[in-house]
Amino acid sequence: MSDLPKRVHISEEGPREGFQFEKGAIPTARKIALIDALSHTGLDQIQIVSFVNPKAVPGMADAEDVVHGIRPNPDVAYTALWLNDKGFERAMREKRLTVKGTIQLGASDKFLLRNQNRTMAQQLASQRTIVEMYKAAGVPVERASIMAAFGCNFEGDVPVVRVVTLVEQILDVAKEHGVTLTYITLADTMAWATPLAIKRVIGALRARWPDIDFALHLHDTRGMAIANAYAGLEMGVTRFDSSVAGLGGCPFAGHKGAAGNVCTEDLVFMCNELGIETGIDLHAMIECAKLAEDVVGHPLPGSVMKGGDLAQYRQ
Amino acid sequence: MSDLPKRVHISEEGPREGFQFEKGAIPTARKIALIDALSHTGLDQIQIVSFVNPKAVPGMADAEDVVHGIRPNPDVAYTALWLNDKGFERAMREKRLTVKGTIQLGASDKFLLRNQNRTMAQQLASQRTIVEMYKAAGVPVERASIMAAFGCNFEGDVPVVRVVTLVEQILDVAKEHGVTLTYITLADTMAWATPLAIKRVIGALRARWPDIDFALHLHDTRGMAIANAYAGLEMGVTRFDSSVAGLGGCPFAGHKGAAGNVCTEDLVFMCNELGIETGIDLHAMIECAKLAEDVVGHPLPGSVMKGGDLAQYRQ
Repeated sequence: MSDLPKRVHISEEGPREGFQFEKGAIPTARKIALIDALSHTGLDQIQIVSFVNPKAVPGMADAEDVVHGIRPNPDVAYTALWLNDKGFERAMREKRLTVKGTIQLGASDKFLLRNQNRTMAQQLASQRTIVEMYKAAGVPVERASIMAAFGCNFEGDVPVVRVVTLVEQILDVAKEHGVTLTYITLADTMAWATPLAIKRVIGALRARWPDIDFALHLHDTRGMAIANAYAGLEMGVTRFDSSVAGLGGCPFAGHKGAAGNVCTEDLVFMCNELGIETGIDLHAMIECAKLAEDVVGHPLPGSVMKGGDLAQYRQ
Repeated sequence: MSDLPKRVHISEEGPREGFQFEKGAIPTARKIALIDALSHTGLDQIQIVSFVNPKAVPGMADAEDVVHGIRPNPDVAYTALWLNDKGFERAMREKRLTVKGTIQLGASDKFLLRNQNRTMAQQLASQRTIVEMYKAAGVPVERASIMAAFGCNFEGDVPVVRVVTLVEQILDVAKEHGVTLTYITLADTMAWATPLAIKRVIGALRARWPDIDFALHLHDTRGMAIANAYAGLEMGVTRFDSSVAGLGGCPFAGHKGAAGNVCTEDLVFMCNELGIETGIDLHAMIECAKLAEDVVGHPLPGSVMKGGDLAQYRQ
């Protein structure tokens, strides 16, 4: 039928992306209601909280309460984000969470300084310490991530060769420390990617490392996320992060118009129409998107929750 | 740099799409203000009104007043839509308008019945009469259009072969009546297209008629319009209709969630990032998008007007 993948894996990041970004307090019980609803859509991975400084990100001050309040579905891995040792320690205390380590680099010095208060060189050095910390804690390290892989509001365009170098550095760190990565995520943190850039970057990485799985984390600030996801599918990408209803934004991007990840139900709709399995029930996901709008109290950018699926029109 | 086109032509349809669809009366002066602003963005074609029954489409009851009120830019062709003889006669009375005939078929019997109260066979027969009417009136016929080319809410999926047949019929009508078409527009009237469908349909048409220009008119009801536009670019499509801020929807699609055309400024942004010329000033277009939101009095779906251009971040 086509050369597109037969199946893709979608990792839901809406709760974490959204709750850390929304203005105004969202009651903990409402956050939990959305997470519990998402747990019954067929998603098998949901990032539900970030363990970060509540002064910097007040929307995550109730992270532990959220984790304790959900009704876990055993078929779902609930994950969390952290940016430092203290956040990692908080995550480790939560037995309901699936805690996995990530080697995390950034393609922009200036973004790293703002987001994590580190230079690229410091970030690379710190990853060696962090991998050892994960190993000592018995936490598997299966993933790496490159932030701002397509461009940066503080630094401008990111050349493809820089991403290639970062992947080299990631693989060096993994090798030195004896960990085997399952995949490497390219994050378009500040929404600089175009479909052409996706094809060029993934193409360059595939040419060099044909056996490594690359995942995409695509923000939709300039409306390109779904086109970028399609370009990824055409390049054989089978792992995507996404946000129900398009929840979210990046609190450190220095940009009040920053949007969330590619919208989960729009991505599921596109996959369905392309004959690509996701394991996710689109109708249940649309209901979650409507719930997400109700929880945050304002319209969210997802399209299919308004436009509806096409299955209803087919005889 | 890539195999994408060097330049594309964007035809703005936001005023006509939007004003016929928006609930509540928009003052004529505000419609005119938006059209006048759009006239200074570099756009060279703007569809500003439809001459339709004001009982069916009350938002277009002031069509003549809009035409008389604008301050025409001589570099812009102002166009209108009509669905029958009476509408055409109204258009012909307006010397400010560029009046060109279109051979119009639809890929769905059921949609044609609702939209124009005709079967596909009746529609085809009527086009012969209409072309003669245009010729008698000295109106050039340069374009054909196929509505619901990718699917229909009333009829379901549209097979590629049906579109091929409709193009054959269009070319027969053109030949019989001695008119030379500049291009044929495929309209995804009810937002059924995916990037893969775009590639398949355009691919099939290109294989058969390599010298005919195909244009795309893409509605964004399910969030796929920009991805579909990119797929079109990859297939060499150089003509797109679009709507500032994503204004619009189809009043006959039987669907309250129906969205407007692909958003003009998002499309211009994507083209800019891809190195494709449009002749349109993105910043002026973003200002028009903000004005469009103010004119209709509610948020509109465009992304780049919220997320901003990237040029500001490049040193």
